[in-house]
Amino acid sequence: MSDDTRNRVTVDIYGQPYTIVGAESASHIRQVASMVDEKMREISVKNPSLDTSKLAVLTAVNTIHDYLKIQEQLHQLQLELQKEKD
Amino acid sequence: MSDDTRNRVTVDIYGQPYTIVGAESASHIRQVASMVDEKMREISVKNPSLDTSKLAVLTAVNTIHDYLKIQEQLHQLQLELQKEKD
Repeated sequence: MSDDTRNRVTVDIYGQPYTIVGAESASHIRQVASMVDEKMREISVKNPSLDTSKLAVLTAVNTIHDYLKIQEQLHQLQLELQKEKD
Repeated sequence: MSDDTRNRVTVDIYGQPYTIVGAESASHIRQVASMVDEKMREISVKNPSLDTSKLAVLTAVNTIHDYLKIQEQLHQLQLELQKEKD
C-alpha cells in the first residue's frame, strides 16, 4: 500500500497528543483513541495511584482480555454456523 | 463474587511487575500479560524512540483496533447465523 492512502490523525489520549497513522478512516482512528482514553480514565478512577505508563499497560491488559473473550465467542459461533450448514 | 474466588497473579510486562486480580485462571492471566508484553515489544522495535508510557498507550490503541475488527466479524457472523435460522 502506498503511503498516500494512509491517514495521519492527531488525537488526544489521557491528556497527551498522539499522531496515529493508519489505513483506516480518520473517524475510526478517533473512535479507537476515544475508547482508549475512556478505558484509561475508568481504570484511573479505580486505581488513582497508578502512573500513566502502568495505567496504559493495564488498559492494554483489559482490552486483550476482552479481545480473547470475543474471539472465543466468534469461534463458538463459527462452529454453530458450520453445524447449521452441515 | 466473593474475593476468595479471585486469583491474584504477579506478571512481568515490559520489564515491570504487575499484580493482576481477576476471576480468570492464573494461566489465562499469564497468557493475557504475555500478549501485552509481546505487542509492546513489537511496537517498540518499529518505534525505538518511544518512552514506555507512549508505547503502552499505542499498544492499547492497537489492541482496541483489533478488538473492533473482531467485534465486527462477530456481528457479521451473528447476522449470517440469523439468516440460516430464518
